[in-house]
Amino acid sequence: MTTRIYRAALVIIGNEILSGRTQDANLAYLAKWLNQQGIRLHEVRVVADETDDIVAAVNAVRARYDYVFTTGGIGPTHDDITVDAMAVAFGVPVVTHPRAEKLLRDHYLERISEARLRMARVPDGAELIENAVSAAPGIKMGNVHIMAGIPSVMRGMLAALDGKLAGGQPVISRTISAYVAESSVAQLLIDVEKKHDGILIGSYPVWRGNKVGANFVVSGIDASIIDIAIADIDAGLRAQDIEPASEEI
Amino acid sequence: MTTRIYRAALVIIGNEILSGRTQDANLAYLAKWLNQQGIRLHEVRVVADETDDIVAAVNAVRARYDYVFTTGGIGPTHDDITVDAMAVAFGVPVVTHPRAEKLLRDHYLERISEARLRMARVPDGAELIENAVSAAPGIKMGNVHIMAGIPSVMRGMLAALDGKLAGGQPVISRTISAYVAESSVAQLLIDVEKKHDGILIGSYPVWRGNKVGANFVVSGIDASIIDIAIADIDAGLRAQDIEPASEEI
Repeated sequence: MTTRIYRAALVIIGNEILSGRTQDANLAYLAKWLNQQGIRLHEVRVVADETDDIVAAVNAVRARYDYVFTTGGIGPTHDDITVDAMAVAFGVPVVTHPRAEKLLRDHYLERISEARLRMARVPDGAELIENAVSAAPGIKMGNVHIMAGIPSVMRGMLAALDGKLAGGQPVISRTISAYVAESSVAQLLIDVEKKHDGILIGSYPVWRGNKVGANFVVSGIDASIIDIAIADIDAGLRAQDIEPASEEI
Repeated sequence: MTTRIYRAALVIIGNEILSGRTQDANLAYLAKWLNQQGIRLHEVRVVADETDDIVAAVNAVRARYDYVFTTGGIGPTHDDITVDAMAVAFGVPVVTHPRAEKLLRDHYLERISEARLRMARVPDGAELIENAVSAAPGIKMGNVHIMAGIPSVMRGMLAALDGKLAGGQPVISRTISAYVAESSVAQLLIDVEKKHDGILIGSYPVWRGNKVGANFVVSGIDASIIDIAIADIDAGLRAQDIEPASEEI
């Protein structure tokens, strides 16, 4: 049986990330959410708030991946140029989406303004990602999901997409840890990974005080194979007189 | 006077970032460090531990930017393939660097092993980035700086490069904040940005309890122009009966 792997890319749009002013909090959340949908995040790009950069990144990844997600640049101010750049990427004009305009007018009432109505602008042909957190909706254009950069709003937009994207099987991962220099078990990890089809083993060194250790993460889509691989690593560690740790370190 | 702008890209290599297992802690640190060197981080890519992906990303950005930095994948285990991928990207073989081998042997003494000696492998023609934190050095190959993914080690490698890269003038940024919906001041920000050459204004909304507010960040390389722009925003806020906050919100 061949399992279709669904893959996604994320484009983070924002000078505030590239300047180091803001620590991104969306990548890891999106990665885990995608995994629950059976989709793997395979590439991320962080680009400046410049039209050419956004267009180049989006066009590169939307051709290559099943799904693309973008964060940032959909607010009401002049530096929010994501919608315009996306229209350039798709070769379509920007239009006002009537339903988005209604959502904004219903929410802001007499406080509606020209700046706020900017958030009803979409690339022609787009659908909305209405959500419980923000009156301004996210936007779906082809396989590209255009979301807010503010983490709480992005999470609301993902919640609105929950279970709605075609996906494969979620990736499962299990960890075995030990206070051992990872170089001492390098060959063991190679052997175990080779022995089993469809798993990947990652080795992540840690220092805890004066002790060196490592977490070994086995991932794949078949829990029973992962369990056997974890048992193989456990046995290989014990064969070197290394007691695996009782929990992740 | 034309100011030469030096720009850099970062390639983060690591399945653990793409799976959401590990929160990246290097991007923001590198961005701020680069700024101190007068270099601007302009693009970031996060790629999987796969040779083709690493090669494509590195070759795309090393042609386009003055400096490239990579993090991750230079340890002793089988999933550490950055050096091999970099050699493919540059079209050179992988060789053992004698000085790197000496550093490792001097550090590990009788605990040296084949796995640990993997960390002396470099693309042919590379220089080392010796540092105070890790016996295994970073690697400089052309304009590409190959660094560890572990934050403390990466910071040690950057410290070794401090002041050694040709750069322009550091970007300065100042922030003015107010409890105001950013959409209310959208036009003010456009006007101030247009009025002054060489500045960028970013608008970053925040919610604090039930209050909406925003931080307005003016950046550029000329502190005196930035100060005038901040004063203009201050005056524009007060003209709308909005008192700027006493500090960033």
